Amino acid sequence: MITKTKIVARYAETDKMGIVHHSVYPIWYEVGRTDFIKRFGTNYSTLEEAGMMMPLINLTCHYGLPAKYEDELIVETKLLKLSCGKITFGYSVYKQPANILIGSGTTEHGFVDSNTFKPINIKKFMPKLFNELKDSIE
Amino acid sequence: MITKTKIVARYAETDKMGIVHHSVYPIWYEVGRTDFIKRFGTNYSTLEEAGMMMPLINLTCHYGLPAKYEDELIVETKLLKLSCGKITFGYSVYKQPANILIGSGTTEHGFVDSNTFKPINIKKFMPKLFNELKDSIE
Amino acid sequence: MITKTKIVARYAETDKMGIVHHSVYPIWYEVGRTDFIKRFGTNYSTLEEAGMMMPLINLTCHYGLPAKYEDELIVETKLLKLSCGKITFGYSVYKQPANILIGSGTTEHGFVDSNTFKPINIKKFMPKLFNELKDSIE
Amino acid sequence: MITKTKIVARYAETDKMGIVHHSVYPIWYEVGRTDFIKRFGTNYSTLEEAGMMMPLINLTCHYGLPAKYEDELIVETKLLKLSCGKITFGYSVYKQPANILIGSGTTEHGFVDSNTFKPINIKKFMPKLFNELKDSIE
Repeated sequence: MITKTKIVARYAETDKMGIVHHSVYPIWYEVGRTDFIKRFGTNYSTLEEAGMMMPLINLTCHYGLPAKYEDELIVETKLLKLSCGKITFGYSVYKQPANILIGSGTTEHGFVDSNTFKPINIKKFMPKLFNELKDSIE
Repeated sequence: MITKTKIVARYAETDKMGIVHHSVYPIWYEVGRTDFIKRFGTNYSTLEEAGMMMPLINLTCHYGLPAKYEDELIVETKLLKLSCGKITFGYSVYKQPANILIGSGTTEHGFVDSNTFKPINIKKFMPKLFNELKDSIE
Repeated sequence: MITKTKIVARYAETDKMGIVHHSVYPIWYEVGRTDFIKRFGTNYSTLEEAGMMMPLINLTCHYGLPAKYEDELIVETKLLKLSCGKITFGYSVYKQPANILIGSGTTEHGFVDSNTFKPINIKKFMPKLFNELKDSIE
Repeated sequence: MITKTKIVARYAETDKMGIVHHSVYPIWYEVGRTDFIKRFGTNYSTLEEAGMMMPLINLTCHYGLPAKYEDELIVETKLLKLSCGKITFGYSVYKQPANILIGSGTTEHGFVDSNTFKPINIKKFMPKLFNELKDSIE
């Protein structure tokens, strides 16, 4: 399962090099992740209200070609790995209309309790969501 | 009473025009405000933990001259107005080493309860801080 | 003439208060402005390549109600004033689906030469665009 | 050779989780990198004006412990690798006053021509800087 999210590069996202600053891509990935989670009949806001947060543990970004102001991009998001304590997403950014891959990345997150920041076992905490996420990998 | 805060313009803060993006100035003002509040023997983190937040109601920014990457700037922060329900700060940004005024602005904030977002009377909630802030205007 | 731009509040745009940070609204206004200019058969990238930039002179933002993560918003953009040297836009942000006004603002820009940063007379430099923009106010 | 850069976490850098958003760390690394380059009798602005830019190719970030608003941090920056076409920096972020390591990362950059974005051989373009950077690794 892959979700596709349309992004238009904002002026504020560019830097003096004339291209989108590299720190913006993790924000675009997050927008893609938000869309991905919505596919499972819930959303990330609801998960947080239910008591679970997903802070980042690791981030990787590869920058192939620059994105520029007003570029129309598609962020593809998919699930790469899932365990009881961690989840890893993969992202690819394609420039439109030619659909050229300009960058890719991964984010690894832990599941933690919203109040205590202590690790949560998602398989026990949200078994239905865990199984559905797990199924989306194969 | 005026506090002076040193800021160095970051690369990520620039845009494709080659200058610092206008949305960055309110963030610099906030850094100045953080320093200002520290002068009163407390800090903004502590105020929030004590149950009071200060969300923005109004913002004005005037942009005179551009700031560029690696520019060293001084943000001057002072209190302009204080009532039981609202507080207004004023800011001036000076480019170093010549100390040239490049921009200025104001932020008006309400005092609200951290949990309910309902208005708080700071004079009742934190009378000592209210009086000290009030004194700093004259 | 008013353009309507759909925005979904991003996680990265929130702050520890749990709401969208006030410095994000000028970025949303800019997204609205980008859409507004596209209505005139050009776009802002093209204007910059043609040799004209529109740096900010003044910004005002009023914050009525908070925006939260995943909120769907409509930014309405319109032209308020136009002279040979300056242009002023007005913005209103409406939270969906109830279309509640949560904030509003204005941005005043100068027309400058992309290379020299010196003022440009838009009426002389781009007479057709000037007239079309002018007409959109009435 | 390691440079140490003091950073104070800004309110705008936090998110609704109450901690600094993960997209901020690459910006802090960039601030560290700016300081690192200054040690070589030049600065990054000057390198860009001389015709060379250093866009990112790869970024990695590891997030160990959260940073919070008003936290005082030290970013340590060092050079990990240098070739004629690429440069890799390493970063560690320490929370003060206890100097606890909370995160680390790397950035790999290419050397490109400021106008054409085509690869530059830094050893030929700036031989003195190349040698000094090279020496700083051992």
